[in-house]
Amino acid sequence: MRAPDALLRLTEAYLADLALTPELGAQQESMRYALEGGKRIRAVICLATAEAAGADPEAALPAAAALELVHAFSLVHDDLPALDDDDERRGRPSAHIAFGEGIALLAGDGLLVEAFRLALTYPTPTLARELADATLGMIGGQYLDITGADADLEELHRLKTGRLFAASVGLALWVAEVPEAEQAPWRAFGEELGLLFQIVDDVLDGDGYATRLGVEAARDFAREAAERARRALDAIAADTTVLRAIVDGLVVRTT
Amino acid sequence: MRAPDALLRLTEAYLADLALTPELGAQQESMRYALEGGKRIRAVICLATAEAAGADPEAALPAAAALELVHAFSLVHDDLPALDDDDERRGRPSAHIAFGEGIALLAGDGLLVEAFRLALTYPTPTLARELADATLGMIGGQYLDITGADADLEELHRLKTGRLFAASVGLALWVAEVPEAEQAPWRAFGEELGLLFQIVDDVLDGDGYATRLGVEAARDFAREAAERARRALDAIAADTTVLRAIVDGLVVRTT
Repeated sequence: MRAPDALLRLTEAYLADLALTPELGAQQESMRYALEGGKRIRAVICLATAEAAGADPEAALPAAAALELVHAFSLVHDDLPALDDDDERRGRPSAHIAFGEGIALLAGDGLLVEAFRLALTYPTPTLARELADATLGMIGGQYLDITGADADLEELHRLKTGRLFAASVGLALWVAEVPEAEQAPWRAFGEELGLLFQIVDDVLDGDGYATRLGVEAARDFAREAAERARRALDAIAADTTVLRAIVDGLVVRTT
Repeated sequence: MRAPDALLRLTEAYLADLALTPELGAQQESMRYALEGGKRIRAVICLATAEAAGADPEAALPAAAALELVHAFSLVHDDLPALDDDDERRGRPSAHIAFGEGIALLAGDGLLVEAFRLALTYPTPTLARELADATLGMIGGQYLDITGADADLEELHRLKTGRLFAASVGLALWVAEVPEAEQAPWRAFGEELGLLFQIVDDVLDGDGYATRLGVEAARDFAREAAERARRALDAIAADTTVLRAIVDGLVVRTT
């Protein structure tokens, strides 16, 4: 079993060498810019799940990269003035500051479609189907976020963050060819990851759950989500030590 | 063989009843708005090609709808102030005028991913793969359009318009399970359609090829593309009368 750090290095090497569609021409530059940096948590979860489920992590690299491309797409579009209007991302100027709004808009579109191209390199359409469903859920979450419509914080985060985290586990299950009848405990694990990530994010940023519950109660809430994730792993007859290490890391992360 | 009008009605009925992903919530309203109107040329080409190639046109409806959703996505994003800044589309306020820029941006994203969801309802991933490649080409064409980089009008139109027209034929071939070894003449036909459409578009709008060649020479250029399309159909051992009618209609269209 490879440790999260080794899986992160595998992801970075794959993304650095990733060939984008030649017809994109010089548009590729903004897409690569938007793809740099980031913690690659979704990719690492995908690779670790694939390995725990019996696959070679290398076989899950296109799926892991697809998840990171969808995540990068969502950041580029969310940062645009029409949505969150953020000038900085991952410690650098946002894509629209670096390249202008038009190119950034197209960069997001391009990253999204390249993600599907990657998910579609597998012989089965199941990965791309799950990626589409998760991305549509994310978009619904972003809609709730900007409109405040039906502003239920749990539902907003389940969609905006949770759907892609859950898909990070789900795509790995298809790579490892885990039969659908055996996927439930893995998916229960995946459902908790996004919530855990988001609560800790809110504590670090001092908003969302930290504002609503207070920092200490939010930290308790994160520990409970981590405990549910560990219990879901208990129900899986496989070596899930690396997935446990990822859960432990998500609870105590400081960036 | 059903006439183009009958195929258009089939398309409109399918799109009117199309269920979008529930998790999109009220975001669906802007997506339906952006999907209304339009000539549905890509859908009709897809359905007519599928029927000519031996499939039931109804079987090609999800593919035809996917093409129209990708087209609608591209219009919504292209109309945004960051790109073409068009306030009107299909005789009505553009999506960002009707719903605001943020919602319009998400509507385009949602239409794009719903298109993949539709293409992925088929058992084979080949349709979604071709849709991804065509959409990436379109994005590359839009990049050339806004940057004027390597401003080669043929290449720009081949990408921005031609790739999705060609995919309208290509997706139908997968629906009809035409073996790859027999696809070449069909695809030669599809390659001419986008060019034919674009030249006539430029004549009607008084720009592009009409500006570069003059109106009469542009009309000749359109007739030549139509003739090449007909010759490609001559090489196909199937009843292609409806496809011929579509070519004839594209040459003389006035809207």
